[in-house]
Amino acid sequence: MSALLESYAAGSWFRAADDGVPLLDAATGDEVARISSTGLDLAAMAAHARDVGGPAVRALTFHERASLLKRLAKHLSADKDDLYALSSRTGATLRDSQVDIDGGFGTLFSYASKGTRELPNDTVVLDGGLERLGRTGAFVGQHVYTSRPGIAVQINAFNFPVWGMLEKLAPAFLAGLPTIVKPAAQSAYLAEAVVRRIIASGILPEGSLQLLSGGPEGLLDVLGPQDSVAFTGSAATGAALRRHPAVLNGGVRLGVEADSLNCSILGPDVGPDDPEFGLFVKGVVTEMTVKAGQKCTAIRRTIAPEHIAGRVAEAIAARLATVTVGDPRNPDVRMGALAGLGQRDEVRRAVQALRASAELVFGDPDSVDTVGADPAKGAFMSPILLRAGADAPEPHDVEPFGPVSTVLTYRTLDEAVALAARGRGSLAGSLVTRDPGVARTVVLGLAPWHGRILVLDREAAPESTGHGSPLPTLVHGGPGRAGGGEELGGIRGVLHHMQRTAIQGSPDLLTAVTGRWTTGAARRAGDEHPFRKSLAELRIGDTIRSAAREVTLADIEHFAEFTGDTFYAHTDPEAAAANPLFGGIVAHGYLVVSLAAGLFVDPAPGPVLANFGVDGLRFLSPVKAGDTIDVTLTVKQITPRISADYGEVRWDAVVANGAGEPVATYDVLTLVAKTR
Amino acid sequence: MSALLESYAAGSWFRAADDGVPLLDAATGDEVARISSTGLDLAAMAAHARDVGGPAVRALTFHERASLLKRLAKHLSADKDDLYALSSRTGATLRDSQVDIDGGFGTLFSYASKGTRELPNDTVVLDGGLERLGRTGAFVGQHVYTSRPGIAVQINAFNFPVWGMLEKLAPAFLAGLPTIVKPAAQSAYLAEAVVRRIIASGILPEGSLQLLSGGPEGLLDVLGPQDSVAFTGSAATGAALRRHPAVLNGGVRLGVEADSLNCSILGPDVGPDDPEFGLFVKGVVTEMTVKAGQKCTAIRRTIAPEHIAGRVAEAIAARLATVTVGDPRNPDVRMGALAGLGQRDEVRRAVQALRASAELVFGDPDSVDTVGADPAKGAFMSPILLRAGADAPEPHDVEPFGPVSTVLTYRTLDEAVALAARGRGSLAGSLVTRDPGVARTVVLGLAPWHGRILVLDREAAPESTGHGSPLPTLVHGGPGRAGGGEELGGIRGVLHHMQRTAIQGSPDLLTAVTGRWTTGAARRAGDEHPFRKSLAELRIGDTIRSAAREVTLADIEHFAEFTGDTFYAHTDPEAAAANPLFGGIVAHGYLVVSLAAGLFVDPAPGPVLANFGVDGLRFLSPVKAGDTIDVTLTVKQITPRISADYGEVRWDAVVANGAGEPVATYDVLTLVAKTR
Repeated sequence: MSALLESYAAGSWFRAADDGVPLLDAATGDEVARISSTGLDLAAMAAHARDVGGPAVRALTFHERASLLKRLAKHLSADKDDLYALSSRTGATLRDSQVDIDGGFGTLFSYASKGTRELPNDTVVLDGGLERLGRTGAFVGQHVYTSRPGIAVQINAFNFPVWGMLEKLAPAFLAGLPTIVKPAAQSAYLAEAVVRRIIASGILPEGSLQLLSGGPEGLLDVLGPQDSVAFTGSAATGAALRRHPAVLNGGVRLGVEADSLNCSILGPDVGPDDPEFGLFVKGVVTEMTVKAGQKCTAIRRTIAPEHIAGRVAEAIAARLATVTVGDPRNPDVRMGALAGLGQRDEVRRAVQALRASAELVFGDPDSVDTVGADPAKGAFMSPILLRAGADAPEPHDVEPFGPVSTVLTYRTLDEAVALAARGRGSLAGSLVTRDPGVARTVVLGLAPWHGRILVLDREAAPESTGHGSPLPTLVHGGPGRAGGGEELGGIRGVLHHMQRTAIQGSPDLLTAVTGRWTTGAARRAGDEHPFRKSLAELRIGDTIRSAAREVTLADIEHFAEFTGDTFYAHTDPEAAAANPLFGGIVAHGYLVVSLAAGLFVDPAPGPVLANFGVDGLRFLSPVKAGDTIDVTLTVKQITPRISADYGEVRWDAVVANGAGEPVATYDVLTLVAKTR
Repeated sequence: MSALLESYAAGSWFRAADDGVPLLDAATGDEVARISSTGLDLAAMAAHARDVGGPAVRALTFHERASLLKRLAKHLSADKDDLYALSSRTGATLRDSQVDIDGGFGTLFSYASKGTRELPNDTVVLDGGLERLGRTGAFVGQHVYTSRPGIAVQINAFNFPVWGMLEKLAPAFLAGLPTIVKPAAQSAYLAEAVVRRIIASGILPEGSLQLLSGGPEGLLDVLGPQDSVAFTGSAATGAALRRHPAVLNGGVRLGVEADSLNCSILGPDVGPDDPEFGLFVKGVVTEMTVKAGQKCTAIRRTIAPEHIAGRVAEAIAARLATVTVGDPRNPDVRMGALAGLGQRDEVRRAVQALRASAELVFGDPDSVDTVGADPAKGAFMSPILLRAGADAPEPHDVEPFGPVSTVLTYRTLDEAVALAARGRGSLAGSLVTRDPGVARTVVLGLAPWHGRILVLDREAAPESTGHGSPLPTLVHGGPGRAGGGEELGGIRGVLHHMQRTAIQGSPDLLTAVTGRWTTGAARRAGDEHPFRKSLAELRIGDTIRSAAREVTLADIEHFAEFTGDTFYAHTDPEAAAANPLFGGIVAHGYLVVSLAAGLFVDPAPGPVLANFGVDGLRFLSPVKAGDTIDVTLTVKQITPRISADYGEVRWDAVVANGAGEPVATYDVLTLVAKTR
């Protein structure tokens, strides 16, 4: 008997007392492992996540979490051969395995990078700008995102056991949540192997990742209003989860990312000799055959202009004829096995349903030549191409979760968009065109129905990641039939796990709550110039208010001559007087901020290393010759870098005129050494 | 018999053939109107919204939609007396009516303003920055929000018939969606009156607003995956809607905003003589009595430190004793009637349930003195204050939707946060404190459980809008028991109605799709300087590439002396050489952008009126003495202003050195006249 998969629960590996059920090699039918969670204490797992894992993750800043993800990604990437070998038993070729395994590790790297670059080195994220809620500015509002004291539960599909786990883990971990993973049984041995490596590495805090090897029964019953379930799988199971009392009444947040009837559209501008024709055909064949078409994002509907659809179908069929099917371990094999015989039966039934209104163009659902494998034992299947009439309902309703696509035709762009919409919501769509007008019409028509749309032409092709590949930086999910959920999308995927709250109050108390200086809050002007303070010494609210300086006509004239910026509003009194906004000579905006820097700078070497940027500069009121200006610079945000001996300081800058009215506001960004 | 309320459906007013059911005056029991939708064709309403209203709204840009909202708000605000009179029949005092009616119109004004200032004058919103997806930049990603070709359905609560309708209408309309309003029966006559004014004004495009006066039966059955339902009401009805097949399987998006057991916490730092003590007491009494406590955001749980809770309860009771109850039309009356006798029965039952673990501190649920009203006919009720022990379960489970609050006590801040969390998710919470440490601990502890939190102290009090008032600029909604939905929050509420999609492709095709110039897309350098072109003539991608200019050591020294910015990296070769980032004298960043302006500017008077700002300036690489720089300026976005003869042009600016490497990138913002 093969090994029984274990669960990682409440700090130790749990082995069920019974023998479990066998999991079979997709290509050989041999037993790979057994699975059971009989006797597993799900309530204890939830409590462990809540009481141990969550607090440990939330004690870290976003940057600290990101740095653990990076260490983890490096650790896992060091040796992948055993994982590839296990992956092949799911029916995956080496290329398929790389999509799953390397794709998963890449997602960790991507989130590590995004977390460092796009989140503060803090535990609270500010959302949007300050809202002034009263006349004087004594009462203001700020939206913040905070971590939920809950659990992120994953219920994953069988097709990408590694990527599916890590693409959910990374954003949840960054968001401060502990995760419980429930992999699909068929490929749970691969998920278990990766979790074993993660746990053994000790990189993630204890309790931040637990594994449930077995059935999900009872899992939702231990969840509450701060918990979320991210489900990937069939629309039917998604609907069943939506009916669970924990979701209906218990406040458990459910994200569903279901398979969908994705389409790829060939633009009417593309002729058979254009490179785009080949790109379209290649894209369809790739999506049909990678992972034997068992991808939520695969192209199920191939939509081509009526006049060229025959040639499209021929070209796809010709290319499919070169696809070798068989033992996924054999390097000559292009397409491996489906996940199991049951899965193949389902796909055959779907093909049968599609044939009610579609003719078979390529392949035999019941027979296939295999390379290096016994077709009687493995879940092998030929790629299947169908062609249906314009009104056929089945292609928009029936999802064959395997190497199957149906060619549909259109005459006008409106028809193409309407055909796509008949899928009632998809994860991914694509359009192959070189025509900007076609791109705009079709993409904007498709957009409300899609989570992601690829526009492919010869320019993008060399770097294109293809129709079917979700990317960590782009949202993954889709409306309607695709489940209505959203994952990934860089930091968007992190914020999905957090709670957005509007905070109202005085600027001083908002500063205390957010840890960021809020306009209107107290400024602290000390004896020492804040440029003399190290990152460790600087405090939110530290301020330098400069002396005043007159801006003379000579200054303006000189600046115009020196920089070459002789715009008439600075040089020609008559023309400037006729300008509807100025009514006379005004100082250059760049002169104002340059003089402001001269006013606030502390010149001697010190902790401030550089000004690396300026954000949100607005010139609020003209500065005229003879006006005086001063500048007030206040520490707004301090961001130590984990892997450098300096960090970033964001300063609020207000340049005011002699009447005390602000003439320019902006943020100055500096790098400041951690110590003097 | 009173008038039968009508529905506005498919372009005309529909009157049911039967007599409907009576709606009674809350204070007198007299019949106000009757309501019925018998025979109303809901499918025709949905089709009208989909085929007529939606396309008409989506043909407008965001700014055009915003300008219609502003016109509508002005029109409705012109004469409110009839509406106040109708409102009083719901039991509302004049002050209550102002919250509903003026609050609703104010929300329209706010969205008109936000839509103009924060959305593009376009139909597509870009979300976040460009994502580079390959090495060369030939394949990039951009998230966009587009309008759904669907319907925004409102199912509203009885308590705020005007505000509840308009706070949902405004963001949906801005998002490009037609609305179908289903008001609660009890106060539907007021909603109908406002819809009549809106329709009669002709300001909104036909089909963009329809009214269903009657029951919601069958409404969800005519909806599909592009449609959404925004429900405000009880958690129980929210759960029932979640079970509807259209939501479970049909892809209809459902937002629930349910009543919740909101709390207000008095900080441990506040003594009985502090102004904050009075602010706390006043806040609780206001929330108990405004709208007779029939507010989803009212304070149901009054949480005070144990040592002071007795004094808090006394002070609240003393203030409640001054609250006059009675005829809402009487100016001496502070609190009117509940919505109806049935409603009062429910509140009495809830009070009875609360009394299982709480003692009555103030008020008699079964008896009240009334002013100018017959207590036997109207739904009058005394404010009720209760006090419960720390472990009482009922205050966290039972919601009395009336003038009722329960005092609870805590000893530590952790206990206070834990008590608040026992409500399992709330719309609004508040904390009265002056202590920054208390503010940070409690607010961050409460945040994951709340959609909005007010921190109140003496500074904020003069402008505070209070615990219970949702504001158009702040999110309204809450996790868990509060429904898990989110509304308002300025543009956030608009984007909730739109679909976010990741678009991948070449920069040129992304430019075509989004209408915004995308980094890497073609630049068009013509014979004419683009500063000579009017807004009408400028095109996305129009470019000026400047001549090159050397930046000399003399320039740097002179700029330092002229501006006073003598920072050592610009003036002291030895110290500059020791700087870890520069390794020698570098040009000031402000010098670089000033010289760049001199390079790209076209000085003579022309359509470009002013540079009003700079966004996202980053200095990527130091410019050293002897380096040459040039600048490339490209039209990125064009935003005509509806009510001015100029608009905004956002230019992409890249300053490069002699090696062609970018040294600074930023956006330049200019105002450009619409015509030459």
